[in-house]
Amino acid sequence: MADRAAWSEYLDQRQPHFVEELRELVRIPSISALPEHAAEVSRAAEWVAGRLRAAGVEGVRVVPTGGHPAVIGEWLRAPGKPTVTLYGHFDVQPVDPLDLWTDPPFSAALRDGRIYGRGASDMKGGVLATIIAVETLLQTAGSLPVNVKFLFEGQEEIGSPQMASFLADHRALLATDYVVMADGGQWSETEPALSLGLRGVVGMEVHVFGARTDLHSGGYGGTIANPLHALAELIASMHRPDGTIAVEGFYDDVAVLSAEERARIAAVPFDEAEYLAQLGVPELFGEPGYSTYERTWVRPTLEVNGMWGGFQGEGNKTVLPNAAHAKITCRLVPNQEPGRIAELVRAHVEGHAPRGVRVELRPMGLGARPYVVPAEHPGVVAARDVLTDVYGREPYYVRSGGSVPISGMLLEALGAYSIPLGFALKDERSHAPNEFYRLASYRRAQEVYIRLLERAGA
Amino acid sequence: MADRAAWSEYLDQRQPHFVEELRELVRIPSISALPEHAAEVSRAAEWVAGRLRAAGVEGVRVVPTGGHPAVIGEWLRAPGKPTVTLYGHFDVQPVDPLDLWTDPPFSAALRDGRIYGRGASDMKGGVLATIIAVETLLQTAGSLPVNVKFLFEGQEEIGSPQMASFLADHRALLATDYVVMADGGQWSETEPALSLGLRGVVGMEVHVFGARTDLHSGGYGGTIANPLHALAELIASMHRPDGTIAVEGFYDDVAVLSAEERARIAAVPFDEAEYLAQLGVPELFGEPGYSTYERTWVRPTLEVNGMWGGFQGEGNKTVLPNAAHAKITCRLVPNQEPGRIAELVRAHVEGHAPRGVRVELRPMGLGARPYVVPAEHPGVVAARDVLTDVYGREPYYVRSGGSVPISGMLLEALGAYSIPLGFALKDERSHAPNEFYRLASYRRAQEVYIRLLERAGA
Repeated sequence: MADRAAWSEYLDQRQPHFVEELRELVRIPSISALPEHAAEVSRAAEWVAGRLRAAGVEGVRVVPTGGHPAVIGEWLRAPGKPTVTLYGHFDVQPVDPLDLWTDPPFSAALRDGRIYGRGASDMKGGVLATIIAVETLLQTAGSLPVNVKFLFEGQEEIGSPQMASFLADHRALLATDYVVMADGGQWSETEPALSLGLRGVVGMEVHVFGARTDLHSGGYGGTIANPLHALAELIASMHRPDGTIAVEGFYDDVAVLSAEERARIAAVPFDEAEYLAQLGVPELFGEPGYSTYERTWVRPTLEVNGMWGGFQGEGNKTVLPNAAHAKITCRLVPNQEPGRIAELVRAHVEGHAPRGVRVELRPMGLGARPYVVPAEHPGVVAARDVLTDVYGREPYYVRSGGSVPISGMLLEALGAYSIPLGFALKDERSHAPNEFYRLASYRRAQEVYIRLLERAGA
Repeated sequence: MADRAAWSEYLDQRQPHFVEELRELVRIPSISALPEHAAEVSRAAEWVAGRLRAAGVEGVRVVPTGGHPAVIGEWLRAPGKPTVTLYGHFDVQPVDPLDLWTDPPFSAALRDGRIYGRGASDMKGGVLATIIAVETLLQTAGSLPVNVKFLFEGQEEIGSPQMASFLADHRALLATDYVVMADGGQWSETEPALSLGLRGVVGMEVHVFGARTDLHSGGYGGTIANPLHALAELIASMHRPDGTIAVEGFYDDVAVLSAEERARIAAVPFDEAEYLAQLGVPELFGEPGYSTYERTWVRPTLEVNGMWGGFQGEGNKTVLPNAAHAKITCRLVPNQEPGRIAELVRAHVEGHAPRGVRVELRPMGLGARPYVVPAEHPGVVAARDVLTDVYGREPYYVRSGGSVPISGMLLEALGAYSIPLGFALKDERSHAPNEFYRLASYRRAQEVYIRLLERAGA
């Protein structure tokens, strides 16, 4: 095993070079959502593969997926030791609105100890940090303390559409004990966090149809049902006034939180006044009996994301519209199943269909199971120990209210849990103009990944 | 007084010429809604003024209004007789979608006894028919049986924005006993109708505001109020499940129908199966205890014309939107006041504002009092007698569910009721592509206006 002085010196000496390498990677506009950028996503894949080979990783390949390619590699010369997969993504979000960027989004401007650019924080810095960690150990100790695999994808920002089949097709090649996801964040520069879960999601559309065509509201209003009234009634019926979801059976499969889980969540700092001020709302509103974090992390929701029908322009158009529409997503928690929840909402819509209109519930592509890694998982324990050591305090155990499909896919295809261990900070504007990444976080990430591999192999 | 043989012969002989004149007028694209057509609206005004002079009408003037001009004229040589004003409009609706027209909309194609073109049915045919009626009487009898004034406007299709002040500014010049509106329709080619009323209208917008910006529904959904849920709740609260309006006090000022009025409405033929089939809806839906015509003509409504918020595109965007909006119009019946109704809706919105959002009710420009002419009004009686004579049966007494501001304006400014007496038919596609007017209706209109003036002077 390398001693700390050796790898620390290696990192310090080469840090200026590693920073230039990160700027090089950030300059590749690998926007996965835009078809005209597909070649750039592939270029980023090739760049990452080249960097893996330079680090001494073996079996490096850019693998087609049917969509944007993945990059894999491995170092498996630690017999008897566990296999840890380092996961990341080299694709980035689009850059609109372009005029809000101070520097061109792919110029990788270096200023005040930060690299500005799309993908710097989310998450090209993390990708490179994992590679640097492995290189550093190989260079200073000549070997790794565990077996390591790399899995980098180019389609995370568009929901990893081809990754489920890619993982299923390469089960043996990708077999692993657990995955360390270099995607994720610190709680603050002085406080670590470990994210133990993601909510699932299921999406659907409600369509309400009335007459064959739009009608004049003076001539026909009041004689037949108005689809906008019917939709309002239907949407209003889905919640009770206290904010709970009124869809029958919706909460049936929700896992009851243990006292320990609730205590872990209660330990995460929350400033209600700051939360309200930041959002600009007068009060909190949600399911009674649960804290804001519990409402976000461990309780399911049913939210209308869009609703429309009839005339929306300036002025008046006295139309009785012939249709009304709503888009709904439910965030799911263990042990809710996306398909089952969609069926419950369908039954609710059918059971509450107002008179005089035809109501249709259409499932949407969106669907992901909730994902939770047990707090006692060896990967979580290893990450906790390393973070406690590095920050001088235990991490907060958080979850994400959002839904990232890849964790669920990895669990399903490989039977392997993922431990999110990233170093982004909340103010780094991921997905927004002027995204940046702190060089201090970059250096810290490299060190934490080194220590994690050491701890995993101990 | 002219004898029937004389004016009938005059009409017959000149009918081909009158048809060519109507085609000439239809060819002027006097679209009042399009600023770039303002000169064409003025050209139509000049054309109508010239035609009035040619008919022997005196004091003919094109009068500025601040918007599109009006045309007035008079013949006041029947001392001791009442004064009847003949009203019409020479502006027309826009022609979109142009590609659905078989002939160019201003080509005035003559085919199968019909003139095809925008404004042919609504209502350049009616305008010319009134002028021809007066010319015919002057030519065949040398005088008119009553005093006649003409009032033609060029802004009816955009809601007559300058007509209220125009009427107020010319009260003496326009003083009259009653107005015959050449705008309106027959029930069918063999059945006459007289429209005794129009509903009023008042418009407003409801805006619901949540957070300062759109938020991620995974990160924030379930912790603060969703404006779309709040709007749905608010809109749903405005009606009871049976279709009645739940706004407190909404029905307070509604005039109770007399048994006679209800009987007149019940006498109008209504085929429910045909109505449903035409609209493509499974069932009628509206205020219990009232027929479809009563719901349309003599009962008020509150209809949402448009509603929107959040994401409406293809696919998913898991947004918790920061605002939601609805446009509402209420149709009003005697004795509801637009301002009072807007206040009641405002009070409802404030009283039912869901928690956690800010709700705003904004009044819209739209506002018109309901208008009803008494069935025993001398103008109505005269029109009834003439129609009964011409069709061989009494007219149906109908109303309009819509709102045309000019009738209310005439009543308010001149103290004069208007009697709608037009000859459009329901299939003539007014406001739609391929509008047409039947030459038979044109000839019938000329005759009815002649007889009406005779009857009014008798």
